Amino acid sequence: MHTDRIKALIRKIKNSSISMDEALSALKNLPYEDIDFAKVDHHRAVRSSIPEVIFAMNKTTEQTLSIARAMYSKGKRFLITKTGDEVYNKLDIKEASFNPRAGTIHCGQPARKKGFVLVVTAGTSDIAAAEEAKETLLFLGSRAEALYDVGVAGIHRVLHHKELLNSARAVIVAAGMEGALPSVVGGLTDRPVIAVPTSAGYGTSFGGLTALFAMLNSCVPGIAVVNIDNGFGAACLAHKINIQR
Amino acid sequence: MHTDRIKALIRKIKNSSISMDEALSALKNLPYEDIDFAKVDHHRAVRSSIPEVIFAMNKTTEQTLSIARAMYSKGKRFLITKTGDEVYNKLDIKEASFNPRAGTIHCGQPARKKGFVLVVTAGTSDIAAAEEAKETLLFLGSRAEALYDVGVAGIHRVLHHKELLNSARAVIVAAGMEGALPSVVGGLTDRPVIAVPTSAGYGTSFGGLTALFAMLNSCVPGIAVVNIDNGFGAACLAHKINIQR
Amino acid sequence: MHTDRIKALIRKIKNSSISMDEALSALKNLPYEDIDFAKVDHHRAVRSSIPEVIFAMNKTTEQTLSIARAMYSKGKRFLITKTGDEVYNKLDIKEASFNPRAGTIHCGQPARKKGFVLVVTAGTSDIAAAEEAKETLLFLGSRAEALYDVGVAGIHRVLHHKELLNSARAVIVAAGMEGALPSVVGGLTDRPVIAVPTSAGYGTSFGGLTALFAMLNSCVPGIAVVNIDNGFGAACLAHKINIQR
Amino acid sequence: MHTDRIKALIRKIKNSSISMDEALSALKNLPYEDIDFAKVDHHRAVRSSIPEVIFAMNKTTEQTLSIARAMYSKGKRFLITKTGDEVYNKLDIKEASFNPRAGTIHCGQPARKKGFVLVVTAGTSDIAAAEEAKETLLFLGSRAEALYDVGVAGIHRVLHHKELLNSARAVIVAAGMEGALPSVVGGLTDRPVIAVPTSAGYGTSFGGLTALFAMLNSCVPGIAVVNIDNGFGAACLAHKINIQR
Amino acid sequence: MHTDRIKALIRKIKNSSISMDEALSALKNLPYEDIDFAKVDHHRAVRSSIPEVIFAMNKTTEQTLSIARAMYSKGKRFLITKTGDEVYNKLDIKEASFNPRAGTIHCGQPARKKGFVLVVTAGTSDIAAAEEAKETLLFLGSRAEALYDVGVAGIHRVLHHKELLNSARAVIVAAGMEGALPSVVGGLTDRPVIAVPTSAGYGTSFGGLTALFAMLNSCVPGIAVVNIDNGFGAACLAHKINIQR
Amino acid sequence: MHTDRIKALIRKIKNSSISMDEALSALKNLPYEDIDFAKVDHHRAVRSSIPEVIFAMNKTTEQTLSIARAMYSKGKRFLITKTGDEVYNKLDIKEASFNPRAGTIHCGQPARKKGFVLVVTAGTSDIAAAEEAKETLLFLGSRAEALYDVGVAGIHRVLHHKELLNSARAVIVAAGMEGALPSVVGGLTDRPVIAVPTSAGYGTSFGGLTALFAMLNSCVPGIAVVNIDNGFGAACLAHKINIQR
Amino acid sequence: MHTDRIKALIRKIKNSSISMDEALSALKNLPYEDIDFAKVDHHRAVRSSIPEVIFAMNKTTEQTLSIARAMYSKGKRFLITKTGDEVYNKLDIKEASFNPRAGTIHCGQPARKKGFVLVVTAGTSDIAAAEEAKETLLFLGSRAEALYDVGVAGIHRVLHHKELLNSARAVIVAAGMEGALPSVVGGLTDRPVIAVPTSAGYGTSFGGLTALFAMLNSCVPGIAVVNIDNGFGAACLAHKINIQR
Amino acid sequence: MHTDRIKALIRKIKNSSISMDEALSALKNLPYEDIDFAKVDHHRAVRSSIPEVIFAMNKTTEQTLSIARAMYSKGKRFLITKTGDEVYNKLDIKEASFNPRAGTIHCGQPARKKGFVLVVTAGTSDIAAAEEAKETLLFLGSRAEALYDVGVAGIHRVLHHKELLNSARAVIVAAGMEGALPSVVGGLTDRPVIAVPTSAGYGTSFGGLTALFAMLNSCVPGIAVVNIDNGFGAACLAHKINIQR
Repeated sequence: MHTDRIKALIRKIKNSSISMDEALSALKNLPYEDIDFAKVDHHRAVRSSIPEVIFAMNKTTEQTLSIARAMYSKGKRFLITKTGDEVYNKLDIKEASFNPRAGTIHCGQPARKKGFVLVVTAGTSDIAAAEEAKETLLFLGSRAEALYDVGVAGIHRVLHHKELLNSARAVIVAAGMEGALPSVVGGLTDRPVIAVPTSAGYGTSFGGLTALFAMLNSCVPGIAVVNIDNGFGAACLAHKINIQR
Repeated sequence: MHTDRIKALIRKIKNSSISMDEALSALKNLPYEDIDFAKVDHHRAVRSSIPEVIFAMNKTTEQTLSIARAMYSKGKRFLITKTGDEVYNKLDIKEASFNPRAGTIHCGQPARKKGFVLVVTAGTSDIAAAEEAKETLLFLGSRAEALYDVGVAGIHRVLHHKELLNSARAVIVAAGMEGALPSVVGGLTDRPVIAVPTSAGYGTSFGGLTALFAMLNSCVPGIAVVNIDNGFGAACLAHKINIQR
Repeated sequence: MHTDRIKALIRKIKNSSISMDEALSALKNLPYEDIDFAKVDHHRAVRSSIPEVIFAMNKTTEQTLSIARAMYSKGKRFLITKTGDEVYNKLDIKEASFNPRAGTIHCGQPARKKGFVLVVTAGTSDIAAAEEAKETLLFLGSRAEALYDVGVAGIHRVLHHKELLNSARAVIVAAGMEGALPSVVGGLTDRPVIAVPTSAGYGTSFGGLTALFAMLNSCVPGIAVVNIDNGFGAACLAHKINIQR
Repeated sequence: MHTDRIKALIRKIKNSSISMDEALSALKNLPYEDIDFAKVDHHRAVRSSIPEVIFAMNKTTEQTLSIARAMYSKGKRFLITKTGDEVYNKLDIKEASFNPRAGTIHCGQPARKKGFVLVVTAGTSDIAAAEEAKETLLFLGSRAEALYDVGVAGIHRVLHHKELLNSARAVIVAAGMEGALPSVVGGLTDRPVIAVPTSAGYGTSFGGLTALFAMLNSCVPGIAVVNIDNGFGAACLAHKINIQR
Repeated sequence: MHTDRIKALIRKIKNSSISMDEALSALKNLPYEDIDFAKVDHHRAVRSSIPEVIFAMNKTTEQTLSIARAMYSKGKRFLITKTGDEVYNKLDIKEASFNPRAGTIHCGQPARKKGFVLVVTAGTSDIAAAEEAKETLLFLGSRAEALYDVGVAGIHRVLHHKELLNSARAVIVAAGMEGALPSVVGGLTDRPVIAVPTSAGYGTSFGGLTALFAMLNSCVPGIAVVNIDNGFGAACLAHKINIQR
Repeated sequence: MHTDRIKALIRKIKNSSISMDEALSALKNLPYEDIDFAKVDHHRAVRSSIPEVIFAMNKTTEQTLSIARAMYSKGKRFLITKTGDEVYNKLDIKEASFNPRAGTIHCGQPARKKGFVLVVTAGTSDIAAAEEAKETLLFLGSRAEALYDVGVAGIHRVLHHKELLNSARAVIVAAGMEGALPSVVGGLTDRPVIAVPTSAGYGTSFGGLTALFAMLNSCVPGIAVVNIDNGFGAACLAHKINIQR
Repeated sequence: MHTDRIKALIRKIKNSSISMDEALSALKNLPYEDIDFAKVDHHRAVRSSIPEVIFAMNKTTEQTLSIARAMYSKGKRFLITKTGDEVYNKLDIKEASFNPRAGTIHCGQPARKKGFVLVVTAGTSDIAAAEEAKETLLFLGSRAEALYDVGVAGIHRVLHHKELLNSARAVIVAAGMEGALPSVVGGLTDRPVIAVPTSAGYGTSFGGLTALFAMLNSCVPGIAVVNIDNGFGAACLAHKINIQR
Repeated sequence: MHTDRIKALIRKIKNSSISMDEALSALKNLPYEDIDFAKVDHHRAVRSSIPEVIFAMNKTTEQTLSIARAMYSKGKRFLITKTGDEVYNKLDIKEASFNPRAGTIHCGQPARKKGFVLVVTAGTSDIAAAEEAKETLLFLGSRAEALYDVGVAGIHRVLHHKELLNSARAVIVAAGMEGALPSVVGGLTDRPVIAVPTSAGYGTSFGGLTALFAMLNSCVPGIAVVNIDNGFGAACLAHKINIQR
């Protein structure tokens, strides 16, 4: 529609139905929508790698459902994060599938991109964040492999998988408590490592803050850190790295 | 030397001077050094992309100098971070050059890699971290471009450079105070964005903590965050992304 | 009544039934109530712009209802904030209307003042604070306009509305997560900007603290900050600015 | 110059030297500078009320001096905040004057605006922030009055000046330690109150954090809060309120 | 029993069945229990002013009930704090009475001591802590007066009662939010002031921490501060001051 | 002067040169100064027990000296706290004496009051706060006794002095690190205990915060807590308790 | 199986079916599993003193049950910590017994080791952590003695038991609130003292943080500190000390 | 002297110059000093394993010197921690030797105890704390071995030394930044591990707090944690474990 408005303006200039000054003014004040339309286009291009995702926390079940249905009717695909079976049970879309460990519901997945992202966890309590990352990666179009429960208390567990670490395009490491695993992984591979602190733990784990700060202070340089339990964000970053031209 | 030990073991097995059980035991207890030697090799391979760097904070001038000289004599190249002119003035290596804004001294730089990393700052106080990132990128072998002082108080400044943002392989954004620039940049580009909180500010800037937390909470998904003032770490991550096969 | 006491004192002075010294002493010790009566009067004058409001958090439903009824019977108008449908359902006052998004119940509204206050939000999770502000503005007698969901992840959304921003008497900006929107808005307008950090977010959003500190550290000078989720307080300040003579 | 480019485009459309599609594309990609040029203009309009100010903290003496000289040569006026006598002694501009209590150097002041802003302090340690506010107000073109050392330990001191409080266009209250004065002032006047927490105090004053949080939690609704020791920011807000049309 | 052991020792010394050295050694190693028995006596003397009180938080209803019954059967009196109607409804002791605002159940009260303690609150949300203080004072044997809802937003309310403040033996001031009232009260009276921060408020009130720190930083010297919501502790201190010989 | 204004008003009423309404209005608006004059009187009465004290932290040597000289010329007595030998060496008042451990200079002391306050420290690092308390007590007119270095690592040290503890009118306990001594002292005596956290310690002592919070959480009910290193405040409170009628 | 692979390699070397270089290469790349197999063996040896324990927090009832059943079928013994009666009621293993105060279920216990560990608490609220420690000690094979409710408010209670303290191999001290008991105990014994901060308390107890920091700052050197409420960890450490050869 | 008082009492009992009741009373009130004298003796016994140590932080050079001289004249041995060359240069005791890396001066060392304590560091910045621990161990009479710079960024470095780890009586691990090394070490050995967080690092290392919390949250159960940079405390604990009978 914006295109139509611009075309109309061009026609008016062409047939001189507006003066130079009027044209100048019209162009300077060319509605932002038009410029933004380009931006939106570009934005949509961005979205083709990171499409719209529904963050269900702080939303009512009804709000979440109505957004999901709208997205489904438009493009047959969506991803809901931080959700539960209450939403899933009320969702009347057959193609949708629910991952209770991840707290995600997805529908429709693009073709897989070349490389794969490895998702690692220190313990079983970190699997929720890891699964959220995995579901997001799949939804975005990246392949994903999992390597769970290889925390530093038994260092040999991760040493086993050095080759797997080095064949990934990026490595996501989710860890709670002391958050040490990303440092160890980062010392074993030259792949970009993305650390996800998780809220697993109690007392001075401070809901994940201790793991977060440990990761930011890693003695291995160049580890990317995201917010606590933010498997989704880690996956978005890993996907951007994976699809790097 | 480890090789010699292993060879000797092989010879003993070959000429049956040890029994099957003895050989089995010897191999199971094969000194870690040997395995580790391989690990060291691999480690060195890692280092070819992120070579040894001297972090001068908490080191005396003498300690820093002696490490730099040792590295110079071995490989003619080194990078010193978080340093000052006191070290530089006493350093008797002609090829070394000092960047006072970055607080770095480098010597020897590899050939440049294909893409470039864009280093952006919100204000002039963030340039120290940005220059540290730039020097590190150059040292690691990545090309680097700078876009300084384009903070959100005058949003048009960064809007001007959307194309530059989108032609980089990765974008490092250094910002102190409210730390908002990475979110705005992340909304304008689909390149991986690495946010460096800086300690610029006073009062409730808490030496960079406010910027750090703001960046971790960005409404743009997939922003990588590193420690406060850690331009070096951001550069390591950006370089890994840039050289991605 | 205080007036009567003062009148009696005046009469005594007049007819010399008390000595100069007695009069002096009586006046110096003139009960505070009397002075305070004036203060109360003035206080009431203040209240004519910021009338009594019922803060329902920490109050039982019964307490809230009884205060609302008392205010209704006295002046036919009241505003309840941080409340819910439990209170509304038990409230037997027809004129009262409930805004569930704002968590407010109001009854009776004065004539609207000249200018309008613009209430902006970064995301949908910030609308509760914004609606509380809007309801409060209406109750106080200011006009209010809303501009929701224009966060910095898509910077073009707020750029569209520069003229709206500049035609308001004051702008309230509610944002959670990284709290960056007030800085961007403050860079686009010369109107007084009042920032409301909201508790939207998780992990290191710290229930709104990160947004709060980001706003206090805005690189745009002169942004007013209020407590987390305090749409009510922001509206009181905006109203005072709006009715400025 | 942007205007010239747009005019050229209009001419091309007019004389059909470019096709409809080419015109459409050119308009959609109309350089941001043009739009931004308007923005810059408007931005400059904003600056006419809040002109460029030099924040000297984190700047070397030389950097501060060179910016000040540049601004002086352009417009004969500037304001430096968070500075000291080292800068002043090296500054070779006669019209400049130094306020050591405020830590400011200013040069050139506009005509005073109609109303005045009252700057209040709880104690003598809060005067630095208050003087910074006063100097900034004068520089911006607002009149300013001071009422110092009227903290709540002797509540009668501020009660004396109710009329002064009520005749101001806005009231800035600087207080450290328990930060209680803005609440008391806010209860005595209907003027917009801007609270500046100061770093005066020791132990649990946490460099002003306790005062900051106390102010954000004021039982008087509608108090604007700025960063710790940010007299400059408070003045910018007060000035915006004062010049409100 | 300890007495018996000591008596036996005395007899042995008396009839010389142990030598001087043996006696010396025995006495030096006299079991602590015996000494402690005296200490317990003295301890009980202390308790006659601060008798055993049951802190019900973290205790099950059954645990609380059984301790209360035991105390009742021994001395016909007890005080339960931080409790609720669930405990009260199951308590089969007629003399016991429940104060729901205080969250206390008491039974049996001593004769009242000479002076009285004044319990002041800033707002209605602070009454729980104040009532806990009052109930404790009564239980300990001090008289108590209440002055509620005289916060600093309307400073005249507390100014009214200067004489009341000055006729108390000690003043307890409970306040949440910005915690400013103790400073104002402390500036109006020379009585010992005990400040109780309360958890009333939201956002940056941090569950009472802001009020606590404000009170510790009072510009009025000599204000005693206790833990958040600790009306019981404040009352114990006030009682000790009241019964001072 | 205020008296003159009131007398003039009385005369006008008396000779009917103003009407009843005018008189009423004049009285209602009777300047606060007059009332406050009384308040100031009362305030001075308060000050006779807690006279003006000079808090030298945040003051220049010259400021401190000029206030001290002014107070000396008026009343021949003063107390300076948080000061050092630089001030003392420039102070030209013979009667003044300097306590370097306390960081105080005093001049002139009143007659001693009946009871005494016991000042206890856990370690030698806490003596600064204790000496500040002692100097303040002496200046205010209370007697003071010291019991230093009796921390809980050797619990027998404080057990020795139970009688001393119980014969004081109040006990001030200064302790850093874990801040445990006030609890132990509070369990041994029924005297009011005032706890002063000190900034002694390192790492997680957080400059006295750990001791402060430990004291606020004492398992002994009724311990008064003051700000970190605030020996002055503790002494003011102890003095108020000591002179209790 | 790894053994088989190594044996095959030895055979190949022996019969020269591979060259020296091939043998060297094969040995250097000897799969980690083999080395790790030894590590696992050693690891298992470690586990014989600290066997696998099920941490039930963050696990569903079903997850906990299935792990317990698996461990039971393998070795007839397990310990579940941070659990409740819901798990116990569904657990179909007769030998298992539930300690509700500890929140533990255990099954099967080894023979007791020589010395005993003393578990001390300050108050009754600390018993949960203490019982968790006791159950863990028993499960690991250490003997355990309990000494509860001997907090510093009545210092004589712990003084009674000096001999018991000194006859233990290690002393675990659980305390909440001000966390002072470990210091007092550490001053009375030369046994290793392990401090467990507990989350008992309210307000500034910060869920055990205050006790934790107090313990880390103990004036008694050499106190071991573990996480808040971590009776399990304290027991593991005490057991390691107890079984010290 | 106390002995004399007790002897006199014994004599009185013996010659019946006091009655049974008087004797009983006298004994029950036997002054604490006497009992405490015994306690002091025992205390001294404790000190024979942990002798008096001089903590120089917060002490002037003169204070430190005079205590050291006094201890030298009494027992020819002492240890000073947290000190520097200023103290050492003024110390006129030949036998004393200074360890600048440790910040310690010691004089006189007992015979070495059987086992040894291994002191491990993650990086070179952690060596100060490690050396303080080593010096303290030697002074207390334990043997000590060092294993420095084996942080988790190169995990093979610590894997090399598994046997060394397992042959120690206890392992002290000093680490700053993310504090991960104690977890890795704890997973490789069954020896008691004592973790020392160090203040090495910047930004969110928070002067060692991040390492401290990481260590408290170790996924390896039973790790002892001490205060930040507290090598001395770690050594005291390790020594107690080492000399365990």
